[in-house]
Amino acid sequence: MTYAHFDPDTIAGWDRFYRANFLNCLSGFKSTHLIGTLSPDGYTNLGLFHNVVHLGAEPALIGYVNRPREAAPHTLENIERTGVYTMNSVQADMIKYAHQTSAKYPRHVSEFEAAGVSAYFRSGIPAPFVLESAVQYALRLVEIVPIRHNNTYLVIGKLLGAWVQEGLLADDGFLHLEKKNTVTSLGIDGYYLPGLIERYAYAKPDEEPKSLQQR
Amino acid sequence: MTYAHFDPDTIAGWDRFYRANFLNCLSGFKSTHLIGTLSPDGYTNLGLFHNVVHLGAEPALIGYVNRPREAAPHTLENIERTGVYTMNSVQADMIKYAHQTSAKYPRHVSEFEAAGVSAYFRSGIPAPFVLESAVQYALRLVEIVPIRHNNTYLVIGKLLGAWVQEGLLADDGFLHLEKKNTVTSLGIDGYYLPGLIERYAYAKPDEEPKSLQQR
Repeated sequence: MTYAHFDPDTIAGWDRFYRANFLNCLSGFKSTHLIGTLSPDGYTNLGLFHNVVHLGAEPALIGYVNRPREAAPHTLENIERTGVYTMNSVQADMIKYAHQTSAKYPRHVSEFEAAGVSAYFRSGIPAPFVLESAVQYALRLVEIVPIRHNNTYLVIGKLLGAWVQEGLLADDGFLHLEKKNTVTSLGIDGYYLPGLIERYAYAKPDEEPKSLQQR
Repeated sequence: MTYAHFDPDTIAGWDRFYRANFLNCLSGFKSTHLIGTLSPDGYTNLGLFHNVVHLGAEPALIGYVNRPREAAPHTLENIERTGVYTMNSVQADMIKYAHQTSAKYPRHVSEFEAAGVSAYFRSGIPAPFVLESAVQYALRLVEIVPIRHNNTYLVIGKLLGAWVQEGLLADDGFLHLEKKNTVTSLGIDGYYLPGLIERYAYAKPDEEPKSLQQR
């Protein structure tokens, strides 16, 4: 198999968009979410974020990477001020308007309205959900960890509640996100539909991998 | 549409594996990678990690979440001692042995050998690559950020070099990982094959989303 080699100097010399495409793709398929927030003065905000990680189950912590403040200010500012935000999955029939929320709208223009997404409020959660998302959850801010090397942030939240469309939850707690055409993203602008290949049982050193999937 | 609601108390009361399945799935499809390291005394190690994020393009920084030290010690220890590690994509025909590397092997047993994966060394990089991976890159440790809320770590590395199989790189720097059947993962044990739906042009407030994809 033939490989093309790219060294750091070559990559640093590329045009900004070429480099962003390459490096965002290099680290693989991402967990794309729409993050909903509300400003203290009552403006809803919706942003598209690709870098979401599971941090732990006990307590239930989820993190996402926020770009530098000047590039992506509104979501972070609202989270700092209200302490609550929602994360919403993206289904295949939503990708066009999910992508449109990444346009740089002024603070007083709601991406919900601009992109044509439905804001939905649940009692006790002062942040808007995306009505069309199959998986919706709310987080309470735990910590904003500054990444000093490039002024990005790891924003850590604790689960306040999850709402999952019926038909996704399996007997063992697994969520079959593919049953509602949940997408994954690649790079800064690629949207993909994943199909299940296989689930495997917990791996043990002296055993062959065993399939968990019902066929 | 009907949603099932799960509150934090309900989730905290679940069996450990049920809860882990649910919460790992909740945050969506992940960027699964095999991370290759070498101990100072010459033992290769290979671990499967799902939570990989793009942190920035200038400098090129990539992060991954390492579970608490007692749960996943060898990769982190090797990275701390040598400062260099490789990240390798998982192709659909590798998922069975990629999953097997997640078994808890003793430190002196190489997951490369145990799982039947080929370790490959490139000059100047003191860490093993996975020969079968379509996308391989090496990182130099920049910082291990402790997440104090649950003893996990965000491990940040700077790109030392990337090796990409021919046929993936597009004219604008995008990497079509789907052309080599690169997988994404869901939860702790689900492997998925993503198919491209669409790429969109950079979003602007007063324009409709434009497709970038050649059909």
